[in-house]
Amino acid sequence: MTVPLDTALSYQCFLSDRVRAAKPSEVRKVFRAAQRPGMISFANGAPYLGGLPFDRLAEDAQRILQSRAAEAFQYGASDGVPELRAHIVDIMRLEGIEADAADAVVTAGSQQALDIAARITINPGDVVFAEGPSYAGGMAVFTSYEAEIVHVPSDADGLIPAELERLSAEVRAAGKTAKGLYTIPNFQNPGGVNLSVERRGEVGRICRDQGLLIFEDNPYGLLGFEGQTLPAIQPQFPDITFYFGSFSKMFAPGLRLGWVLPPAAFRGELVKASETAQLNPSVFTQLLMSAYLDDPAWRDTLDTYRALYREKYQTLVETLSAVMPAGTAWNAPTGGFYLWITLPEGLDAEQLVYECIERGAVYVPGTAFYTDGQGRNKMRMSFCLPTLEQIRQGAAIIGEVFREALASR
Amino acid sequence: MTVPLDTALSYQCFLSDRVRAAKPSEVRKVFRAAQRPGMISFANGAPYLGGLPFDRLAEDAQRILQSRAAEAFQYGASDGVPELRAHIVDIMRLEGIEADAADAVVTAGSQQALDIAARITINPGDVVFAEGPSYAGGMAVFTSYEAEIVHVPSDADGLIPAELERLSAEVRAAGKTAKGLYTIPNFQNPGGVNLSVERRGEVGRICRDQGLLIFEDNPYGLLGFEGQTLPAIQPQFPDITFYFGSFSKMFAPGLRLGWVLPPAAFRGELVKASETAQLNPSVFTQLLMSAYLDDPAWRDTLDTYRALYREKYQTLVETLSAVMPAGTAWNAPTGGFYLWITLPEGLDAEQLVYECIERGAVYVPGTAFYTDGQGRNKMRMSFCLPTLEQIRQGAAIIGEVFREALASR
Repeated sequence: MTVPLDTALSYQCFLSDRVRAAKPSEVRKVFRAAQRPGMISFANGAPYLGGLPFDRLAEDAQRILQSRAAEAFQYGASDGVPELRAHIVDIMRLEGIEADAADAVVTAGSQQALDIAARITINPGDVVFAEGPSYAGGMAVFTSYEAEIVHVPSDADGLIPAELERLSAEVRAAGKTAKGLYTIPNFQNPGGVNLSVERRGEVGRICRDQGLLIFEDNPYGLLGFEGQTLPAIQPQFPDITFYFGSFSKMFAPGLRLGWVLPPAAFRGELVKASETAQLNPSVFTQLLMSAYLDDPAWRDTLDTYRALYREKYQTLVETLSAVMPAGTAWNAPTGGFYLWITLPEGLDAEQLVYECIERGAVYVPGTAFYTDGQGRNKMRMSFCLPTLEQIRQGAAIIGEVFREALASR
Repeated sequence: MTVPLDTALSYQCFLSDRVRAAKPSEVRKVFRAAQRPGMISFANGAPYLGGLPFDRLAEDAQRILQSRAAEAFQYGASDGVPELRAHIVDIMRLEGIEADAADAVVTAGSQQALDIAARITINPGDVVFAEGPSYAGGMAVFTSYEAEIVHVPSDADGLIPAELERLSAEVRAAGKTAKGLYTIPNFQNPGGVNLSVERRGEVGRICRDQGLLIFEDNPYGLLGFEGQTLPAIQPQFPDITFYFGSFSKMFAPGLRLGWVLPPAAFRGELVKASETAQLNPSVFTQLLMSAYLDDPAWRDTLDTYRALYREKYQTLVETLSAVMPAGTAWNAPTGGFYLWITLPEGLDAEQLVYECIERGAVYVPGTAFYTDGQGRNKMRMSFCLPTLEQIRQGAAIIGEVFREALASR
């Protein structure tokens, strides 16, 4: 049997079912456009890096290369460097998590942590609940293992516990396996909502009672505009919770480091999965991250960012108030990276984004954050990376496109 | 339904089928033992790093942090930094591969490249052929996606084409899907064998005729003791070959960088899978790797390593000749990292490794390199990392244990 690969059709026979099951998405085009030179991007969930002490990081890198190169440039432990894990434990304590350094598992970003957690738990056809809307990349991990995402309706206090309970019963009644809940409880992506403290307990109890795992994804927890934090879900439900942390938003994405604190019973399989996926995270970048955290000044740097992000958020909202068509609404996040916008009747964010790109500004259409086709009248704007001036210019472009679209209807 | 997780048994219900299907392996214990202080390890496939120009790398790191920090510490393209991909193209050309920088995909080590290639191609139950013996970590990737590994008998010229053809027919006759061939054509791990140039063509033609993908894993190709290289399989069969390259053996594993050159038709899905798995490889480490390769002196450094590895190999073989029981045999690799040893009748490498560990030296039992239980009378010794003195001492320990075991039978 000869299999020519010169047509798109014939190579399909080599693709795995999990790839063939994946839904096509428009959102990659949007992110590609965000990379164009001169584009004002509200698309990427990228942090501002201007205030980081790169001189000090260069000194740290030099010291590591002078004194510990044979360790830093060699293979390392699959679960991470002990000194970085010790820092991770200190960071998690800020949100009420008590753990040992031996419990955490360092990964190449929290995205990889999500991937290996899904890999060891998800079977094709399993249902994973998620806020509606939710992080596209997180849901993509679960769907890449052929899970079905079921969105749980949310309000200003986060996902609604009674809805989770109802949907969980429905899923079981339909003969499906409800495997877990994927939740971003703090400054949620893209909704910007916090799951209220009271609901954290309720949601956790429902998950325990219904036999659901909790995938608690928390990249933004330390990024409250006022430095406020909320208690993690994990401490109340440690035996069913995978807690995910990231250095990408509170520090920088460039070292590709994150972590997961799994239920103790799953740790062995999780580390094995991480080893199969990439042997170990870079020892060099782990030592560099650890050196950065050795100086408590990192918390002052984070304070600077919080204040800056609040200012950017306020500038974005002020500009939008002036330029967007009447009837546009948005939430009022108290931290994090994202503004979540609802458009007036008749405007389609997915359709209009290409005209915005044409004129030099880009956001993410709301459809990217649902797996069921919702969100055409929604959009996410990330306000952390662009400058204040770019925010004003970019929002003005978007406002113009939307006003014109409304006028021409 | 309440699911208590306080017993190992109950948490099993949350594990995915792919985890439950995995076979337990002894080999993790061996690698853990290799980490003990003072242990002489022939276990890890770890390169010698003593000759790397760490001062220069520190300068490179400083320059990147001074002039390109906002790029180096931000998110980046899922398929890698263009300048590193340009270097990769130059490196691949050394083995006869003609590609554009836009074709290669950078990953967090070639292990991750294997993982995403398997992810987009393997369905549960698919058969993947592999040399017998083969790299444990590579086979673990395929089995983690529930592929079945079928070993193809090999001789001194690598895997035997007629055997591949016969087994492929057998697998199809049994109603199974034969998906691909996983091969390490150069200085094979662990066999140390090269697939002969003639057989490269034969093997490729069989794969094309039988509808098999080729997973060509080549971390050792530039590590011939005399600097000799062999032409890659990829150029003859670009439409069915995933070619995997690694910086971990020719430079260092610490930056966690490798790459894959996929068939053009698969590139889009491959990049998407990489993005889902970890968004992007570290831009900082990619720029550092690229800066290292900017200076052609890296090839002189590699020459130094080759000469050193040959000396270590010769020292190991000389020592083993003196200390191992009569009837022990080994191959004669012309490059790479590994000596592959066959023990005299009645000796069990898996059983005896624990006594060797007790006395301070460790190797990998042959069973790790087969998925079908073969290899109890085989073992792999990596000779690149230990010093000449450690090689003599460690081999003496192993010889003593084996002689005693034979005497006590």
